[in-house]
Amino acid sequence: MRRTSFKRMRCPIARSLERVGEWWSILILRDALRGSTRFDQFQKRLTIAPNILTRRLRALVDAGLLERSLYSEHPPRYEYILTPAGRDFQPVIVALLTWGNAHCAPEGPSVILAHAPTGKIADPVLVDRNTGRRITQHEFEFVPAAASKGRRGRPTAASKRTAEQRSPDAR
Amino acid sequence: MRRTSFKRMRCPIARSLERVGEWWSILILRDALRGSTRFDQFQKRLTIAPNILTRRLRALVDAGLLERSLYSEHPPRYEYILTPAGRDFQPVIVALLTWGNAHCAPEGPSVILAHAPTGKIADPVLVDRNTGRRITQHEFEFVPAAASKGRRGRPTAASKRTAEQRSPDAR
Repeated sequence: MRRTSFKRMRCPIARSLERVGEWWSILILRDALRGSTRFDQFQKRLTIAPNILTRRLRALVDAGLLERSLYSEHPPRYEYILTPAGRDFQPVIVALLTWGNAHCAPEGPSVILAHAPTGKIADPVLVDRNTGRRITQHEFEFVPAAASKGRRGRPTAASKRTAEQRSPDAR
Repeated sequence: MRRTSFKRMRCPIARSLERVGEWWSILILRDALRGSTRFDQFQKRLTIAPNILTRRLRALVDAGLLERSLYSEHPPRYEYILTPAGRDFQPVIVALLTWGNAHCAPEGPSVILAHAPTGKIADPVLVDRNTGRRITQHEFEFVPAAASKGRRGRPTAASKRTAEQRSPDAR
Protein backbone atom coordinates (compact mmCIF):
# COMPACT_ATOMS: atom_id res chain seq x y z
CA MET A 1 0.00 0.00 0.00
CA ARG A 2 2.94 2.29 0.63
CA ARG A 3 4.38 3.49 -2.66
CA THR A 4 7.52 5.31 -1.61
CA SER A 5 10.61 3.19 -1.36
CA PHE A 6 13.33 3.97 1.16
CA LYS A 7 15.63 1.45 -0.52
CA ARG A 8 18.03 4.01 -1.88
CA MET A 9 18.50 5.80 1.40
CA ARG A 10 21.68 4.86 3.21
CA CYS A 11 20.26 5.64 6.65
CA PRO A 12 19.95 2.43 8.69
CA ILE A 13 16.60 3.59 10.09
CA ALA A 14 15.12 4.04 6.61
CA ARG A 15 16.55 0.69 5.56
CA SER A 16 15.06 -1.04 8.58
CA LEU A 17 11.63 0.36 7.75
CA GLU A 18 12.03 -0.63 4.12
CA ARG A 19 13.01 -4.16 5.07
CA VAL A 20 10.30 -4.70 7.66
CA GLY A 21 7.64 -3.55 5.20
CA GLU A 22 4.76 -1.93 7.06
CA TRP A 23 2.83 -1.60 10.31
CA TRP A 24 1.25 -5.06 10.06
CA SER A 25 4.68 -6.61 9.87
CA ILE A 26 5.59 -5.06 13.21
CA LEU A 27 2.49 -6.56 14.83
CA ILE A 28 3.31 -9.94 13.26
CA LEU A 29 6.82 -9.73 14.71
CA ARG A 30 5.33 -8.74 18.07
CA ASP A 31 3.20 -11.89 18.05
CA ALA A 32 6.09 -14.05 16.85
CA LEU A 33 8.12 -12.74 19.80
CA ARG A 34 5.22 -13.73 22.05
CA GLY A 35 5.35 -17.29 20.72
CA SER A 36 2.99 -17.38 17.72
CA THR A 37 4.27 -19.58 14.90
CA ARG A 38 1.21 -20.71 12.94
CA PHE A 39 -0.97 -18.93 10.46
CA ASP A 40 -4.10 -19.48 12.58
CA GLN A 41 -2.42 -18.09 15.69
CA PHE A 42 -1.38 -14.94 13.90
CA GLN A 43 -4.78 -14.53 12.33
CA LYS A 44 -6.64 -15.01 15.58
CA ARG A 45 -4.50 -12.55 17.51
CA LEU A 46 -4.34 -9.93 14.79
CA THR A 47 -7.83 -10.28 13.30
CA ILE A 48 -6.17 -9.64 9.96
CA ALA A 49 -7.58 -10.59 6.53
CA PRO A 50 -6.04 -13.93 5.43
CA ASN A 51 -4.77 -12.54 2.13
CA ILE A 52 -2.98 -9.68 3.87
CA LEU A 53 -1.50 -12.05 6.46
CA THR A 54 -0.26 -14.37 3.71
CA ARG A 55 1.38 -11.47 1.93
CA ARG A 56 2.98 -10.03 5.06
CA LEU A 57 4.30 -13.41 6.23
CA ARG A 58 5.81 -14.02 2.81
CA ALA A 59 7.43 -10.58 2.83
CA LEU A 60 8.91 -11.19 6.29
CA VAL A 61 10.30 -14.53 5.08
CA ASP A 62 11.78 -12.83 1.99
CA ALA A 63 13.27 -10.13 4.24
CA GLY A 64 14.94 -12.78 6.40
CA LEU A 65 13.03 -12.04 9.60
CA LEU A 66 10.96 -15.23 9.60
CA GLU A 67 11.73 -18.73 8.37
CA ARG A 68 9.07 -20.99 6.92
CA SER A 69 9.23 -24.54 8.16
CA LEU A 70 7.07 -27.60 7.40
CA TYR A 71 5.50 -29.05 10.54
CA SER A 72 2.94 -31.41 8.98
CA GLU A 73 3.26 -33.31 5.70
CA HIS A 74 -0.34 -34.51 5.24
CA PRO A 75 -1.77 -31.97 4.77
CA PRO A 76 1.31 -29.76 4.26
CA ARG A 77 1.38 -27.13 6.99
CA TYR A 78 4.03 -24.52 7.70
CA GLU A 79 5.04 -22.58 10.70
CA TYR A 80 6.91 -19.30 10.84
CA ILE A 81 9.93 -19.16 13.12
CA LEU A 82 11.89 -16.03 13.96
CA THR A 83 15.37 -15.92 12.44
CA PRO A 84 18.22 -14.33 14.43
CA ALA A 85 17.48 -11.02 12.61
CA GLY A 86 13.82 -11.37 13.60
CA ARG A 87 14.68 -12.03 17.24
CA ASP A 88 17.03 -9.03 17.19
CA PHE A 89 14.03 -6.86 16.35
CA GLN A 90 12.78 -7.28 19.93
CA PRO A 91 14.25 -3.97 21.22
CA VAL A 92 12.25 -2.04 18.60
CA ILE A 93 9.03 -3.72 19.78
CA VAL A 94 9.92 -3.16 23.44
CA ALA A 95 10.70 0.51 22.75
CA LEU A 96 7.31 0.90 21.00
CA LEU A 97 5.60 -0.83 23.94
CA THR A 98 7.27 1.48 26.43
CA TRP A 99 6.36 4.57 24.45
CA GLY A 100 2.79 3.38 23.96
CA ASN A 101 2.35 2.70 27.67
CA ALA A 102 3.70 6.14 28.51
CA HIS A 103 1.80 8.12 25.90
CA CYS A 104 -1.13 6.14 24.47
CA ALA A 105 -2.64 4.41 27.50
CA PRO A 106 -4.63 7.01 29.45
CA GLU A 107 -6.50 4.22 31.25
CA GLY A 108 -3.22 2.54 32.27
CA PRO A 109 -1.07 -0.02 30.45
CA SER A 110 -2.78 -3.14 29.13
CA VAL A 111 0.43 -5.01 28.26
CA ILE A 112 3.77 -4.74 30.00
CA LEU A 113 7.17 -6.39 29.91
CA ALA A 114 8.00 -8.78 32.73
CA HIS A 115 11.08 -10.74 33.76
CA ALA A 116 9.85 -14.26 33.11
CA PRO A 117 11.67 -16.24 35.84
CA THR A 118 10.51 -13.89 38.62
CA GLY A 119 7.38 -12.33 37.09
CA LYS A 120 8.63 -8.89 38.09
CA ILE A 121 7.63 -5.94 35.95
CA ALA A 122 10.50 -4.56 33.90
CA ASP A 123 11.23 -0.91 33.21
CA PRO A 124 13.08 -0.96 29.87
CA VAL A 125 15.64 1.79 29.26
CA LEU A 126 18.33 2.15 26.64
CA VAL A 127 21.88 2.40 27.91
CA ASP A 128 25.28 2.52 26.26
CA ARG A 129 26.80 -0.90 26.87
CA ASN A 130 30.31 0.57 26.81
CA THR A 131 29.76 3.01 29.66
CA GLY A 132 26.42 2.12 31.25
CA ARG A 133 25.17 5.66 30.56
CA ARG A 134 21.49 6.08 29.90
CA ILE A 135 20.89 7.13 26.29
CA THR A 136 19.14 10.48 26.21
CA GLN A 137 18.54 12.91 23.40
CA HIS A 138 20.69 15.55 25.07
CA GLU A 139 23.81 13.47 25.48
CA PHE A 140 23.71 11.17 22.46
CA GLU A 141 23.38 11.96 18.80
CA PHE A 142 23.42 10.33 15.39
CA VAL A 143 26.65 10.96 13.49
CA PRO A 144 27.99 9.76 10.15
CA ALA A 145 30.03 6.62 10.82
CA ALA A 146 33.04 7.87 8.85
CA ALA A 147 33.08 11.25 10.59
CA SER A 148 32.99 9.79 14.08
CA LYS A 149 36.56 8.54 13.86
CA GLY A 150 38.12 11.96 13.49
CA ARG A 151 35.99 13.99 15.87
CA ARG A 152 36.35 12.55 19.33
CA GLY A 153 36.03 15.30 21.89
CA ARG A 154 34.95 17.97 19.43
CA PRO A 155 31.79 19.83 20.40
CA THR A 156 28.70 18.68 18.55
CA ALA A 157 25.07 19.79 18.29
CA ALA A 158 24.07 17.59 21.24
CA SER A 159 27.00 18.63 23.42
CA LYS A 160 26.07 22.25 22.76
CA ARG A 161 22.48 21.45 23.73
CA THR A 162 23.75 19.86 26.93
CA ALA A 163 25.94 22.87 27.64
CA GLU A 164 23.01 25.24 27.10
CA GLN A 165 20.87 23.18 29.40
CA ARG A 166 23.55 23.16 32.04
CA SER A 167 24.28 26.87 31.94
CA PRO A 168 21.39 27.93 34.26
CA ASP A 169 22.80 25.68 37.00
CA ALA A 170 26.30 27.00 36.42
CA ARG A 171 25.39 30.61 37.05
CA MET B 1 -2.14 5.42 2.28
CA ARG B 2 -2.59 2.78 4.97
CA ARG B 3 -6.27 1.91 5.28
CA THR B 4 -6.37 -0.33 8.31
CA SER B 5 -6.77 1.40 11.63
CA PHE B 6 -5.20 0.00 14.77
CA LYS B 7 -7.17 2.47 16.88
CA ARG B 8 -9.41 -0.11 18.47
CA MET B 9 -6.57 -2.38 19.53
CA ARG B 10 -5.64 -2.06 23.17
CA CYS B 11 -2.05 -3.17 22.59
CA PRO B 12 0.33 -0.27 23.28
CA ILE B 13 2.46 -1.25 20.27
CA ALA B 14 -0.51 -1.05 17.91
CA ARG B 15 -1.54 2.24 19.47
CA SER B 16 1.93 3.68 19.07
CA LEU B 17 1.93 2.76 15.38
CA GLU B 18 -1.55 4.22 14.96
CA ARG B 19 -0.52 7.44 16.63
CA VAL B 20 2.76 7.91 14.79
CA GLY B 21 1.02 7.41 11.45
CA GLU B 22 3.40 5.84 8.96
CA TRP B 23 7.00 5.28 7.89
CA TRP B 24 7.57 8.88 6.79
CA SER B 25 6.60 10.07 10.26
CA ILE B 26 9.38 7.98 11.76
CA LEU B 27 11.93 9.57 9.44
CA ILE B 28 10.57 13.03 10.27
CA LEU B 29 10.97 12.24 13.97
CA ARG B 30 14.48 10.95 13.27
CA ASP B 31 15.38 14.31 11.69
CA ALA B 32 13.68 16.27 14.43
CA LEU B 33 15.79 14.35 16.95
CA ARG B 34 18.84 15.33 14.91
CA GLY B 35 17.91 18.99 15.20
CA SER B 36 15.71 19.77 12.17
CA THR B 37 12.89 22.18 12.96
CA ARG B 38 11.99 23.89 9.69
CA PHE B 39 10.02 22.72 6.71
CA ASP B 40 12.96 23.30 4.35
CA GLN B 41 15.34 21.33 6.56
CA PHE B 42 13.01 18.35 6.66
CA GLN B 43 12.40 18.55 2.95
CA LYS B 44 16.07 18.76 2.08
CA ARG B 45 17.07 15.84 4.28
CA LEU B 46 14.16 13.62 3.36
CA THR B 47 13.73 14.52 -0.32
CA ILE B 48 10.00 14.19 0.29
CA ALA B 49 7.23 15.76 -1.80
CA PRO B 50 6.08 19.03 -0.14
CA ASN B 51 2.43 17.99 0.01
CA ILE B 52 3.31 14.73 1.78
CA LEU B 53 5.62 16.54 4.19
CA THR B 54 2.89 19.10 4.99
CA ARG B 55 0.44 16.30 5.69
CA ARG B 56 2.84 14.28 7.83
CA LEU B 57 3.95 17.30 9.87
CA ARG B 58 0.33 18.24 10.50
CA ALA B 59 -0.45 14.67 11.58
CA LEU B 60 2.51 14.64 13.98
CA VAL B 61 1.32 17.95 15.46
CA ASP B 62 -2.22 16.54 15.84
CA ALA B 63 -0.77 13.43 17.47
CA GLY B 64 1.11 15.56 20.01
CA LEU B 65 4.62 14.59 18.90
CA LEU B 66 5.54 17.94 17.37
CA GLU B 67 4.52 21.46 18.28
CA ARG B 68 4.11 24.19 15.68
CA SER B 69 5.61 27.50 16.66
CA LEU B 70 5.79 30.84 14.85
CA TYR B 71 9.38 31.99 14.37
CA SER B 72 8.85 34.78 11.84
CA GLU B 73 5.84 37.10 11.53
CA HIS B 74 6.54 38.72 8.15
CA PRO B 75 6.17 36.45 6.33
CA PRO B 76 4.60 34.02 8.81
CA ARG B 77 6.93 31.04 9.24
CA TYR B 78 6.59 28.10 11.56
CA GLU B 79 8.99 25.64 13.04
CA TYR B 80 8.27 22.20 14.38
CA ILE B 81 9.59 21.44 17.85
CA LEU B 82 9.53 18.03 19.50
CA THR B 83 7.12 17.75 22.42
CA PRO B 84 8.06 15.61 25.44
CA ALA B 85 6.18 12.69 23.80
CA GLY B 86 8.18 13.28 20.61
CA ARG B 87 11.48 13.33 22.47
CA ASP B 88 10.47 10.15 24.28
CA PHE B 89 10.27 8.44 20.89
CA GLN B 90 14.07 8.48 20.68
CA PRO B 91 14.55 4.89 21.97
CA VAL B 92 12.39 3.56 19.10
CA ILE B 93 14.57 5.39 16.57
CA VAL B 94 17.77 4.24 18.28
CA ALA B 95 16.51 0.64 18.34
CA LEU B 96 15.73 0.86 14.60
CA LEU B 97 19.19 2.32 13.96
CA THR B 98 20.88 -0.47 15.89
CA TRP B 99 18.91 -3.14 14.08
CA GLY B 100 19.55 -1.52 10.70
CA ASN B 101 23.28 -1.31 11.34
CA ALA B 102 23.35 -4.97 12.37
CA HIS B 103 21.17 -6.35 9.59
CA CYS B 104 20.82 -3.88 6.71
CA ALA B 105 24.32 -2.45 6.29
CA PRO B 106 26.47 -5.07 4.53
CA GLU B 107 28.98 -2.36 3.61
CA GLY B 108 29.24 -1.19 7.23
CA PRO B 109 27.17 1.36 9.16
CA SER B 110 26.71 4.80 7.63
CA VAL B 111 25.20 6.41 10.72
CA ILE B 112 25.90 5.56 14.33
CA LEU B 113 25.06 6.82 17.77
CA ALA B 114 27.78 8.71 19.66
CA HIS B 115 28.11 10.18 23.12
CA ALA B 116 28.20 13.87 22.27
CA PRO B 117 30.50 15.25 24.98
CA THR B 118 33.24 12.67 24.27
CA GLY B 119 32.46 11.69 20.67
CA LYS B 120 32.72 8.04 21.64
CA ILE B 121 30.66 5.52 19.73
CA ALA B 122 27.77 4.12 21.76
CA ASP B 123 26.52 0.56 21.78
CA PRO B 124 22.83 0.87 22.68
CA VAL B 125 21.26 -2.01 24.59
CA LEU B 126 17.96 -2.31 26.43
CA VAL B 127 18.17 -3.08 30.12
CA ASP B 128 15.65 -3.32 32.93
CA ARG B 129 16.18 -0.20 35.01
CA ASN B 130 14.99 -2.00 38.14
CA THR B 131 17.60 -4.75 38.03
CA GLY B 132 20.14 -3.74 35.37
CA ARG B 133 19.45 -7.01 33.52
CA ARG B 134 19.80 -6.95 29.76
CA ILE B 135 16.41 -7.42 28.10
CA THR B 136 16.46 -10.52 25.94
CA GLN B 137 13.70 -12.46 24.30
CA HIS B 138 14.43 -15.51 26.43
CA GLU B 139 14.17 -13.85 29.80
CA PHE B 140 11.55 -11.17 29.25
CA GLU B 141 8.06 -11.42 27.89
CA PHE B 142 4.95 -9.35 27.24
CA VAL B 143 2.19 -10.03 29.74
CA PRO B 144 -1.25 -8.53 30.33
CA ALA B 145 -0.83 -5.73 32.88
CA ALA B 146 -3.65 -7.02 35.09
CA ALA B 147 -2.30 -10.57 35.12
CA SER B 148 1.21 -9.56 36.12
CA LYS B 149 0.14 -8.62 39.64
CA GLY B 150 -0.97 -12.09 40.65
CA ARG B 151 1.67 -14.19 38.95
CA ARG B 152 5.04 -13.30 40.39
CA GLY B 153 7.22 -16.34 40.38
CA ARG B 154 4.92 -18.50 38.30
CA PRO B 155 6.57 -20.14 35.28
CA THR B 156 5.74 -18.51 31.98
CA ALA B 157 6.37 -19.21 28.31
CA ALA B 158 9.67 -17.33 28.39
CA SER B 159 10.88 -18.92 31.63
CA LYS B 160 10.17 -22.33 30.09
CA ARG B 161 12.15 -21.28 27.01
CA THR B 162 15.02 -20.24 29.26
CA ALA B 163 14.84 -23.51 31.14
CA GLU B 164 14.92 -25.49 27.89
CA GLN B 165 17.89 -23.50 26.71
CA ARG B 166 19.70 -24.00 29.96
CA SER B 167 19.14 -27.74 30.18
CA PRO B 168 22.10 -28.73 27.95
CA ASP B 169 24.49 -26.95 30.33
CA ALA B 170 22.85 -28.52 33.36
CA ARG B 171 23.48 -32.06 32.17
